[in-house]
Amino acid sequence: MASFDATAAANPGVRKLQPYQAGKPMDELQRELGLSHVVKLASNENPLGLSEKVRTALQGELSDLIRYPDANGFYLKSKLAELHQVGSDQITLGNGSNDVLEILARTFVSAEHEVVFSQHAFVVYPLVTQAIGAKGVSVPAKDYGHDLDAMAAAINERTKMVFIANPNNPTGTFLSTAEIKAFLDKVPEHVIVVLDEAYYEYVPEADRAPSVEWLQHYPNLVVSRTFSKAYGLAGLRAGYAVSSADIANLLNRIRQPFNVNSLSLKAAEVVLDDHDYLQRAIEVNAQGMQQLVEFCRSEGFNFIPSHGNFLTIEVGANAADIYQRLLHEGVIVRPVAGYELPNHLRVSIGLPEENQAFIDAMRNIR
Amino acid sequence: MASFDATAAANPGVRKLQPYQAGKPMDELQRELGLSHVVKLASNENPLGLSEKVRTALQGELSDLIRYPDANGFYLKSKLAELHQVGSDQITLGNGSNDVLEILARTFVSAEHEVVFSQHAFVVYPLVTQAIGAKGVSVPAKDYGHDLDAMAAAINERTKMVFIANPNNPTGTFLSTAEIKAFLDKVPEHVIVVLDEAYYEYVPEADRAPSVEWLQHYPNLVVSRTFSKAYGLAGLRAGYAVSSADIANLLNRIRQPFNVNSLSLKAAEVVLDDHDYLQRAIEVNAQGMQQLVEFCRSEGFNFIPSHGNFLTIEVGANAADIYQRLLHEGVIVRPVAGYELPNHLRVSIGLPEENQAFIDAMRNIR
Repeated sequence: MASFDATAAANPGVRKLQPYQAGKPMDELQRELGLSHVVKLASNENPLGLSEKVRTALQGELSDLIRYPDANGFYLKSKLAELHQVGSDQITLGNGSNDVLEILARTFVSAEHEVVFSQHAFVVYPLVTQAIGAKGVSVPAKDYGHDLDAMAAAINERTKMVFIANPNNPTGTFLSTAEIKAFLDKVPEHVIVVLDEAYYEYVPEADRAPSVEWLQHYPNLVVSRTFSKAYGLAGLRAGYAVSSADIANLLNRIRQPFNVNSLSLKAAEVVLDDHDYLQRAIEVNAQGMQQLVEFCRSEGFNFIPSHGNFLTIEVGANAADIYQRLLHEGVIVRPVAGYELPNHLRVSIGLPEENQAFIDAMRNIR
Repeated sequence: MASFDATAAANPGVRKLQPYQAGKPMDELQRELGLSHVVKLASNENPLGLSEKVRTALQGELSDLIRYPDANGFYLKSKLAELHQVGSDQITLGNGSNDVLEILARTFVSAEHEVVFSQHAFVVYPLVTQAIGAKGVSVPAKDYGHDLDAMAAAINERTKMVFIANPNNPTGTFLSTAEIKAFLDKVPEHVIVVLDEAYYEYVPEADRAPSVEWLQHYPNLVVSRTFSKAYGLAGLRAGYAVSSADIANLLNRIRQPFNVNSLSLKAAEVVLDDHDYLQRAIEVNAQGMQQLVEFCRSEGFNFIPSHGNFLTIEVGANAADIYQRLLHEGVIVRPVAGYELPNHLRVSIGLPEENQAFIDAMRNIR
């Protein structure tokens, strides 16, 4: 058996797959550099801390952890169905929206298909495509955002899925309701359009697309949302898709039955009712965005105007070096060279003092 | 777009896929039948309740839930590596071992391959095979357990993976160390052997296979374990594979980066040190097994001798009816007709009073 070659035995798509690079964990930096205080602005997390209502609810749930989660997510799906005015049978729960995106690809995409997404768009789109061995088609961005005309033109008879991130991570760019609707009208019926709205809650209400309502007119549309951002549950892993009941039925065959753990189900259910928390999260984000934008303007840094909970700043050709020096200052941000943005760093919006720590560190390392 | 047919658009394997049937949740039964007290012996959970050490640790972790989990699971993998005397780079963490099994299949199996497993073996093996569109080969069981000679004979040049559950769910059958070793010696090198030891801790130490040590001699072997059974963390979702570093490297490319949530990582790390809890779990299980076996003997029910935390009892051709009548008595057990065992019910070992509730209910419904 000494001749066994695991890589040669792997599926073709897997052999060339590069794993997702996560933001550096805080305690990893503390271990590596011996720092006692670290600010992490690297993973677009919610700086508010856990909703107190969620904390109280979770403490009451700890005893039941020896039980498997409800495989059907009855209560959370009922609540989401009410919120979105759809049937529970139109909801598919995911272990974060990463899971939702992967389930979508695995349900509809095979090795002979093509998947269309934008340059600079969320890296999970090419990753799930590559894992299947399908062909990923990265369409050049326009002003760092999705060029929907070019994406429509990239669709051919082998195209099975299009991913649209709105707002997009890591650029923060945003497509208007009219732009997306015009695109949906153009997409042929054999193509599933996944509208990934992970940062939806940070968009002013007047600008938000009526994406779930669109499901009535576009049976090939799937809307994806997450509890990891504005709802502050990144560590628990919960996201979901809203789609036609037909699509949800298929997604739920691929979904692992216990993909969403018991505490996530409960926390997501509770946080949906914590309107104050969501409102504060949005306000703190708007204020922090202003703080970082003002810093960029005062220091002459270009940035990509952002509709998310992060700002992607053009720091120059030495971005990788600046990232490293920020680490030594105890500030973790996100390099985005892997997104073909080698001169930029993505900075998540933190609390005012965390944003200030980033600003101070940037001035210190000059 | 009215002509869009979601099912026709799905991958071939998905179209025929039947979703996993989970054990009935307790609150679902309470909702449906208006029962106030329900005993669930349906999902091979640990009846002890959560380890107190885990509970304390989780309460301290709640604040950090707004952060993403450590995508690399540094601390848990370090602890598992120490426990198993392997490198951290030989561990792949899963959202329960269901996730591990799916990652394995997706890494190595394509539509043109065959996957071999036993009749009456864990249903996730055929499910993950079918989802990929590969051919599942179910080998007839011998005395309800794996017929390893027949399984070896079922391997051909298209076979890519063999799943062995030891002990097996839902039959509780067990293969000796010598039997498995003889099988490993026969398997050709192009086949990955997955030894699923979800119920490993319930096996007396003297009988446990040195499965992780075998990795040194069988580079095509993968050992899978879970925290959902003896460790009592089913609701949190944590499992893992131990393999060669080469295989783990491939599995970690397919693994979703945040597949194991923050609380699972912490709970699994803590419970590995709670030796008292594990010992009590094993003892409570042995006593409960004795209680159910005595009931079967006294009432003349045949049962499959079990090495797990459940007993699969032959109740007769009206098993489905007995299952329903037990529900009305407030006792949830597991029908196993989907496992080609239409005359059996699988009863998880509970606390003494829970086992007694099952026994009383069985007598009531006569």
